[in-house]
Amino acid sequence: MTSPRSSRLAVLASGHGSNLRALADADRAGELGGSIVLVLSDRPGCGAISIARERGIAVETPDAGCFRTRLEPAAESEWVERLRAHDVDTILLAGFMRILHAPFLDAFPGRVLNIHPSLLPAFPGVDAIHQAWRHGARITGCTVHLVTAGIDEGPILMQSAVPVLDDDSEETLAARIHAAEHALFPRAVRAFLERPFRLEGRRVLWLAPEAP
Amino acid sequence: MTSPRSSRLAVLASGHGSNLRALADADRAGELGGSIVLVLSDRPGCGAISIARERGIAVETPDAGCFRTRLEPAAESEWVERLRAHDVDTILLAGFMRILHAPFLDAFPGRVLNIHPSLLPAFPGVDAIHQAWRHGARITGCTVHLVTAGIDEGPILMQSAVPVLDDDSEETLAARIHAAEHALFPRAVRAFLERPFRLEGRRVLWLAPEAP
Repeated sequence: MTSPRSSRLAVLASGHGSNLRALADADRAGELGGSIVLVLSDRPGCGAISIARERGIAVETPDAGCFRTRLEPAAESEWVERLRAHDVDTILLAGFMRILHAPFLDAFPGRVLNIHPSLLPAFPGVDAIHQAWRHGARITGCTVHLVTAGIDEGPILMQSAVPVLDDDSEETLAARIHAAEHALFPRAVRAFLERPFRLEGRRVLWLAPEAP
Repeated sequence: MTSPRSSRLAVLASGHGSNLRALADADRAGELGGSIVLVLSDRPGCGAISIARERGIAVETPDAGCFRTRLEPAAESEWVERLRAHDVDTILLAGFMRILHAPFLDAFPGRVLNIHPSLLPAFPGVDAIHQAWRHGARITGCTVHLVTAGIDEGPILMQSAVPVLDDDSEETLAARIHAAEHALFPRAVRAFLERPFRLEGRRVLWLAPEAP
């Protein structure tokens, strides 16, 4: 049940790059179902760029424009061009802090995945771990979903639960959620690339079991 | 770390009574931290009433008034009187389908617990399991929380995660969530009655470990 060709993946990142590292590790181990051929970042100097360089992955930092939470429309076209120049078919948002809009999403329909550090639909948007902490949730976790125009709203591919422990600080909780993300994201990417599924409404119906 | 006196519990129920049965089983096994002395129901003839009778628990069906989703104000006072007549100190909502308001809640401040079949704050309100199913959640569960004036909004005592399986139907998922409720509610009641805790904002901070 593999894709007709090996997927060419791009990772978009703004931060430390720990999810990128987990994805690159899975790629190296042959467990990602595709190959990361490009890293794009809106933040020159961020940790994700160093990790890409260490791993020998092409990395570019095209201009993002003058907005802080989105790509400027002209920039969005430029980012799509860069992705196309590398023949990328699937985009992974790994701590990418800008909202993508229709021109970008329409260029890769149904092929943009995001990881979010909560059990969506609980705690969407920024500071999800802090939101869950403040709320007093006793179970939180992380979600890999398809990206649609709504923020953190697309169909859910996989989720992983993380309990809040009595002796947790917000920092120890965050560390466990990040560890869950690093396990979940490669697993969800592989499933997305290798397992047939269909959408029923916004439900993702997997049509074949997960690889062992 | 036990309460100064054994708690006298009332269960309010509208439905089949499966959560009442789980609570009564824990009570009989000495694992509830208190004793169920009264069942009140707004639905004469519901399953919960039969279960109360089977178990020899006092059961009453005071008039709920003419509204469908709340107790009429005069009825709310009557219900409080019934609870006081039985010297009840803690109220457990087990599938009770009416919203309680300030006069009731003020009569038992911080002593009303509810169980809800989702990981709140996701999927509050009615048909939570159906909501989670339709949404395509991959992890859902149940929540025991203190009841406040907001619907399904009070501080969370405990939660339990339930995965949505690839071969689930909405019915098989519901069955597993109900089983999780039947385990969680008695455990949370016992913790509430026996373990010291304090509220920090809306976070419940348990100050002693759970009984083994």
